[in-house]
Amino acid sequence: MMDEDLLKQIEFIKEIDKIKYIQRRTKLFNSDRNENDAEHSWHLAMMAIVLSKHSDVKIDLLKVIKMVLIHDIVEIDAGDTFIYDQNKDHENTEEELKAAKRIFGILPEKQAAEFIEIWTEFEDGLSNEAKFAKSMDRLEPLLQNTSNKGGTWKEYGVKYQTVCNKKKVIENASTKLWDYAKTLIENSVRKGILKK
Amino acid sequence: MMDEDLLKQIEFIKEIDKIKYIQRRTKLFNSDRNENDAEHSWHLAMMAIVLSKHSDVKIDLLKVIKMVLIHDIVEIDAGDTFIYDQNKDHENTEEELKAAKRIFGILPEKQAAEFIEIWTEFEDGLSNEAKFAKSMDRLEPLLQNTSNKGGTWKEYGVKYQTVCNKKKVIENASTKLWDYAKTLIENSVRKGILKK
Repeated sequence: MMDEDLLKQIEFIKEIDKIKYIQRRTKLFNSDRNENDAEHSWHLAMMAIVLSKHSDVKIDLLKVIKMVLIHDIVEIDAGDTFIYDQNKDHENTEEELKAAKRIFGILPEKQAAEFIEIWTEFEDGLSNEAKFAKSMDRLEPLLQNTSNKGGTWKEYGVKYQTVCNKKKVIENASTKLWDYAKTLIENSVRKGILKK
Repeated sequence: MMDEDLLKQIEFIKEIDKIKYIQRRTKLFNSDRNENDAEHSWHLAMMAIVLSKHSDVKIDLLKVIKMVLIHDIVEIDAGDTFIYDQNKDHENTEEELKAAKRIFGILPEKQAAEFIEIWTEFEDGLSNEAKFAKSMDRLEPLLQNTSNKGGTWKEYGVKYQTVCNKKKVIENASTKLWDYAKTLIENSVRKGILKK
């Protein structure tokens, strides 16, 4: 007889394939091809592995990786929210919570609860792991936009102060990474790819 | 003064973006769109998290995740090798080792050595973690091909016995997953999407 938990897990594994069709606004490095959520999540996990030593406090790397790998799965139902969109709240929405419950709910009960908890912890952004995971989520598009002559900043007319406000989240995780991010932002102004 | 290690790490993070352009032969689920290596690696990491409890022996999940996230990075230089390609050896090639040394070598020395070690351990396939990581790498395309009416089996005329031989790697990691994989393979023969 087939293990029921395994069948639920396989169903979940097939369902989350859909994340590969969710397009972000940001483009790949030195590219005009949009990044999708699976690629983005893979990159954040790699960044977390490579940069974890720069965290100001000790963090549980496995938990950070789980967070960044699953953080955008809700977008399968809720769609990608552009961080500089002024009409839509980027914070944890009802729509996203409903999506989390439906998609993680495909898993066996105990595992579903665990995934919803990790996702909620990421969204709340209060734990050290969530802070580091969020800093990765802010750093990747910063690197992409600076490699793409302004990228989405230029495309959507996003100004210096807005970028600083959004990227300041990095400071909650790592002084060193925030110093680096500030340098990138200031250099972008100097190069004329970000307007004050 | 800028931290030299951090600059090397950022250079590595930019370099590995290229994995998003490496196309695999297998297609996404119920789709005719090829999967790329970043999407594939993200999916394997998610599968490892979801399925790790089915391992026959205790495994270090963080190490398994690192393995699957980095295992295809060498393909940036060496290109994707199709598992059913009879003209090219799929095993650890000189070309891949050279690629590993170049790409992981962008990182600070100690971290580079750590990445090369993890990648080599995966390629050797001897440790419990490598066995589990490899079982994920075999299971994903099996799920994809069965969802795609035979997928690459049909497209390249791959026969039942060859599929069994390749997928048998799953047995080294998990009796339960291998039982499930065998059922999928037998059902595929019954459905006529895999020829004996």
